Amino acid sequence: MKQIYLDNQSNTKMDDIVFDAMLPYLKENYGNPQSIYSLGQISKDAIEQARISVAKLINAQNNEIIFTSCGSESNNLALKGFAYANLKKGKHIIVSSIEHFSILNSVKALSSEGFEITYLPVDGEGFVNIKELKKALRKDTILVSIQHANTEIGVIQDIAGISKIVKEKNISMHVDAVCTAGIIPIDVASLNIDMLTLASSVIYGPKGAAALYVKKGTLIKTQIDGGVQEFSKRAGTENVPAIAGFGIACDIAMSEMQKNFDYTKVLRDKLINGLKDKIEYIYLNGSINNRLPNNVNFSIEFVEGEALFLMLDAKGIMAASGSSCASKSLKMSHVLTALNVNTAVGQGSIVFTLSKFNTSEEIDYVIEEFPKIVERLRSMSPLYDHFIKTGTRMKAGPGTDYDDHDHEHCDNI
Amino acid sequence: MKQIYLDNQSNTKMDDIVFDAMLPYLKENYGNPQSIYSLGQISKDAIEQARISVAKLINAQNNEIIFTSCGSESNNLALKGFAYANLKKGKHIIVSSIEHFSILNSVKALSSEGFEITYLPVDGEGFVNIKELKKALRKDTILVSIQHANTEIGVIQDIAGISKIVKEKNISMHVDAVCTAGIIPIDVASLNIDMLTLASSVIYGPKGAAALYVKKGTLIKTQIDGGVQEFSKRAGTENVPAIAGFGIACDIAMSEMQKNFDYTKVLRDKLINGLKDKIEYIYLNGSINNRLPNNVNFSIEFVEGEALFLMLDAKGIMAASGSSCASKSLKMSHVLTALNVNTAVGQGSIVFTLSKFNTSEEIDYVIEEFPKIVERLRSMSPLYDHFIKTGTRMKAGPGTDYDDHDHEHCDNI
Repeated sequence: MKQIYLDNQSNTKMDDIVFDAMLPYLKENYGNPQSIYSLGQISKDAIEQARISVAKLINAQNNEIIFTSCGSESNNLALKGFAYANLKKGKHIIVSSIEHFSILNSVKALSSEGFEITYLPVDGEGFVNIKELKKALRKDTILVSIQHANTEIGVIQDIAGISKIVKEKNISMHVDAVCTAGIIPIDVASLNIDMLTLASSVIYGPKGAAALYVKKGTLIKTQIDGGVQEFSKRAGTENVPAIAGFGIACDIAMSEMQKNFDYTKVLRDKLINGLKDKIEYIYLNGSINNRLPNNVNFSIEFVEGEALFLMLDAKGIMAASGSSCASKSLKMSHVLTALNVNTAVGQGSIVFTLSKFNTSEEIDYVIEEFPKIVERLRSMSPLYDHFIKTGTRMKAGPGTDYDDHDHEHCDNI
Repeated sequence: MKQIYLDNQSNTKMDDIVFDAMLPYLKENYGNPQSIYSLGQISKDAIEQARISVAKLINAQNNEIIFTSCGSESNNLALKGFAYANLKKGKHIIVSSIEHFSILNSVKALSSEGFEITYLPVDGEGFVNIKELKKALRKDTILVSIQHANTEIGVIQDIAGISKIVKEKNISMHVDAVCTAGIIPIDVASLNIDMLTLASSVIYGPKGAAALYVKKGTLIKTQIDGGVQEFSKRAGTENVPAIAGFGIACDIAMSEMQKNFDYTKVLRDKLINGLKDKIEYIYLNGSINNRLPNNVNFSIEFVEGEALFLMLDAKGIMAASGSSCASKSLKMSHVLTALNVNTAVGQGSIVFTLSKFNTSEEIDYVIEEFPKIVERLRSMSPLYDHFIKTGTRMKAGPGTDYDDHDHEHCDNI
């Protein structure tokens, strides 16, 4: 059977070059980087080389990069670490309502410790509402954390514009760039931001490595205490092979960035247009104009997302039904909720995220198979049956109240 | 040049079988375990299989195992996670004074948040003082955390005895078993402990994986918030290859435990006796009777530990000068300080930790080369020169006050 992997925002297949770079550190170069003998220093050198590569990718200084084990850990370190180190300045934090759960649950934890959180709304295309941001900034606001691009809908925020507003008030700024670092250019210096999260496993690097950029002079409180690793900001024996692989993944991402951008964007647009041509009542979620080159997020009316997902899997097509961490949840994702997508429609949502390894033939296959799946599911749907027979949509119960004009915002192409 | 790796408490060379088990998850099985499609479930299965292996190693239930990225993270989760989840019961925590820095710095962080910490002294052999433990237990004591065996001196605590005293008072107990899990038998059920830390990279497994055993019913507060991974107790994309490798490392450790114990113990005793026979004024730190089968920790009078370490490295012998996380520190380790080792002597300390990969020939080489290094260093030492000429020891300044009887405790063989 075909195996078409279109869940690259959840995780990418590792680049062979990355694996080759990791190999010596999984085999003969097993020394602990904190040891001064030669075998330890080989590991130490690998980490420092990777630090240079990560720093270069975002135009940071080497000693502004802290390695962690995953993007979630970086986000926790950024939010909690900054909050606890700066609480004398104030206890108000602003995030957008479509952040990743590692941000939302970090600030939830902080709110139970006396911090006050403002969740910024987004507009129908997924953009942070700038007016609301300006209104939300207070004298006791210490931090604003905004995702560079959203995991589910791929919408890229205007970080430069947001940062300008935030920094004018002398407030610090964190950016979760897990979806963008290595995919589109990032320059932390010109963006004038204080912290930024990057992860390895979504840019053809290994699992087990991520980083937090912390601008020189920014105070954060260590979250994993112990030894002197990572400038005493993150203890624990370094995962040398993963960090080395992450570094190489950054090097490759930099050199291939434009090529991969153009390549996946062509596939993305082919997929979007192909499905829209063949399927009625299908709505793209999120802006098409400022969007990751590899993200497709559709709500398909009169189908259930879970059934869609499973039938795609049966055809060898691997996609996501929402945020990868919440894929077991049946309710509509918090992102689509924030976009004010109608629940009845939003429950039939599917996310395709492409990689440089996908081919045009694979997209052809999806364009061929997906409409058939939708057709089959609709043939079993009483809601669709009612719609076809009457031309009107059934009320589907509490929380699924349907209103035609709700669609407009998610149909931007 | 020879390469003799005797720093296996810092990190072990990975077993080839472990690497082979990781390989598919570094290559074709790259799915995110939280995804429901087949490629995700392959990763999920690998994690659950590893969870069974880890649980089996310590006689726990599968759902009592939480995977983390390193032993330090597990220790932080245990101490901070338990403290914050149980602070209504009290804010007093007891640890030994020879714990790993990930414990000591976790409780230091907690002490700045209003928790009160008691540091238990140890006797000259490195054992926790039971009388002091009994005295330290209070009505508001919520947790006692004691290392199973010490990283530096390899002394194995009487956890069953300690646990009995602690649990009689309905106080919870955490054990840092990074040095013992996979090396000597552990049964969390019969030990009656509530939390236990294990790590992969010291039992021939990969870096990047560790675990915390949390007994059913024990409340801990998540330290890395985000998605639903690890029973919502540790968010972040799972490091599947490392976790899979950790599981296999546990399987191998279980099946080879007695064999490896006996094998390394023979090498250890050969090394201890060989060096003691050839070198005067050399003192074994820590009890010989309840000691890890692979640990040798000597203080050598009239030499500097750093010079010793570097000259050993020049001969291809890789050892440790103290805790791996503090090896850059020139001061005597906190463990030797707690054992009341004389500073002048303790500064000339070296730790050899053996593995199943070491050979008897390697030990012969160390026994041949090490005394020559000591002799050479002593030939340059004014302290040694004074001692040889006068038969008395020079006072070496504040904190290094020398007294003959201080030696007795560390010379147990």
